[in-house]
This record gives sequence, C-alpha cells and structure tokens, in this order.
Amino acid sequence: MERHVCVDCGWVHYDNPKIVVGSVVTYEGKFLLCKRAINPRKGFWTLPAGYLEQNETTADGAMREAFEEANAKIRIRDLLALYSVTHISQVQIMYRAELDNPEFSAGPESLEVRLFEWSDIPWNDLAFPTVYWALHQYRQIKDKDYFAPFANASGEMLEKSLEVLRR
Amino acid sequence: MERHVCVDCGWVHYDNPKIVVGSVVTYEGKFLLCKRAINPRKGFWTLPAGYLEQNETTADGAMREAFEEANAKIRIRDLLALYSVTHISQVQIMYRAELDNPEFSAGPESLEVRLFEWSDIPWNDLAFPTVYWALHQYRQIKDKDYFAPFANASGEMLEKSLEVLRR
Repeated sequence: MERHVCVDCGWVHYDNPKIVVGSVVTYEGKFLLCKRAINPRKGFWTLPAGYLEQNETTADGAMREAFEEANAKIRIRDLLALYSVTHISQVQIMYRAELDNPEFSAGPESLEVRLFEWSDIPWNDLAFPTVYWALHQYRQIKDKDYFAPFANASGEMLEKSLEVLRR
Repeated sequence: MERHVCVDCGWVHYDNPKIVVGSVVTYEGKFLLCKRAINPRKGFWTLPAGYLEQNETTADGAMREAFEEANAKIRIRDLLALYSVTHISQVQIMYRAELDNPEFSAGPESLEVRLFEWSDIPWNDLAFPTVYWALHQYRQIKDKDYFAPFANASGEMLEKSLEVLRR
C-alpha cells in the first residue's frame, strides 16, 4: 500500500474513508434540491450534503451543508440512511429533515435551489445514485415516526439509480 | 487552520474526521467484551471496534474488527447507534450483532475476550464512555425487531458514562 510521507516533517498521510453528511429536506411534501455549480456533476441536481468537518457532529454537519448550499435552516428529524460508497471510500450519512418555512436560495456551490413535487423531480438530471436512493427510501417511510435506517440500495432500485450516471 | 503539506509532492493533508465501526455482540443474552492489549486504555474492557479501512463497507469493517480482536465471526443485525465524538473528531458506527456459536479468543490487540452476563459486566473497568452508551442503549431495544438508532447519550447516562474515565 502506497502512503504519502512528508519529507519535511515525516508526517505519514493515511488515507481514511471520508464522511459525507446530508439530508432529504422537505417542505409541505416537496423536496429541496440543489443544482450543482461545481464539479463533479456540475449542472446536475443533488441533495444538500458535503464533507463532515473536524469537531462537528454529523447532525450539525448536515445542517451546515444545507445552510451553505441552499441558505436553508433545516430541522433534523432522524437518520434516514447510512451508505458505504466503497469505490470512493465514502460513508454517507443521510438525515430526514424539514424546512419550517420556504426560505432558501442558491449558495456559492449551487446554481439554483428549488422545491420539487415528487413527480416533478428531475430524475434524468440527478447528480449521484445516492440521491436517487435517498429520495426513494424517504418515500417508503415518509409517514412513519420511526424506522430502521436504510443501507445501500440493491436490486431494481440500484439498477435504476445507476442510469443517473449515464447522463 | 494549520495543514500539513508535503514539500516533496505538494500533497496537502486535510485532517478529516475518522470513522470507527464496532458492535455490541451477544450470544445467548451474554455480551462479548475484549480487554485491550494496547493503549489508550490498555487493560480496560471494550467492544470489538476499530477504524474503518479504505474501500470497506461499515458492516464489513465491524465484522473484520470482531474477527481481528476476538477471532469471532459475527452476524450483523442492524444499526444500533451513531455517535459523534467531536473532541477527537470521530464518528462511531455501532451495530447490533450476534455470535452463532461461542467460538472466540483473544486477537493480537486483546489480552482476553469473554462473554459477560449483564450483571457481571466490568462496569468499573470499561475503556470508553461510548462502550457504556452502546451497552445500555442495546439493553433498551433488545427485544425489538427494528428501531431508530441511538445518538450520543445525554443526561444521567452521559453523566454515569463519564465516570468510566476517572479510573
């Protein structure tokens, strides 16, 4: 296994899996999505999500990302899903969250932020398979007060989600 | 914010929160604990847990740790808890798991591995507060088929768990 070592200070850089925190945010049954202003997948729609920072709780990180990307103040309800995206060594922690009022706008990493009815979600222009998973899994538990969180999609949901990347 | 940069290759080392994966493992109602052979907290009892590796799912990581530390082949049931230990920038992902047979032994990082009845758990010699949280939270849902996973302990459970570190 190759490691990066700093010749100046001897620091060994161990690659560790990274943590992404995000949320499916709804307001009156509609879904908050952000059109990405940056690569990868610039111009495609995603959930508010990003890397957890040092000394931050996972819920605080998800709230921060929604504020940075969508100027949205969200209320975290519970853990929706825990994904392992092994080929890029990411663990994605996705919450179920709500907007208390429809105030939001595009942050610097977003071209546009919108609330979509389920049937209007731009399914052909989603940024990542995990966005597809999280939205569909949310839909399965939307009327439940509590539930066991989801893991990676499999079967038909996985198949369909991979079509996202063909665009 | 200080960052480590390699003067040789220009690699910037970003410190990211690290992911610990582990499990509360039971066999016939008894709890599998490992006495640590290494610091920190050498000689204290812990759950089988450790750092997630690159390209590994969180469940696979929890199974690997149980095998490395306790030579135990565990079956993951579901997600018990997700902890944010912010002062050391760790996210701990704890599963509920079972042993199918009572075969285990100390791996290189353990001095001893044992199954404990609840009342025999060495509460005065636990390694970390999160071990206390996970065991008590497990106890709250042990008869449930599914449940929303726990987050960091608070209130009395948090208070009592911190006594662990006074020893």
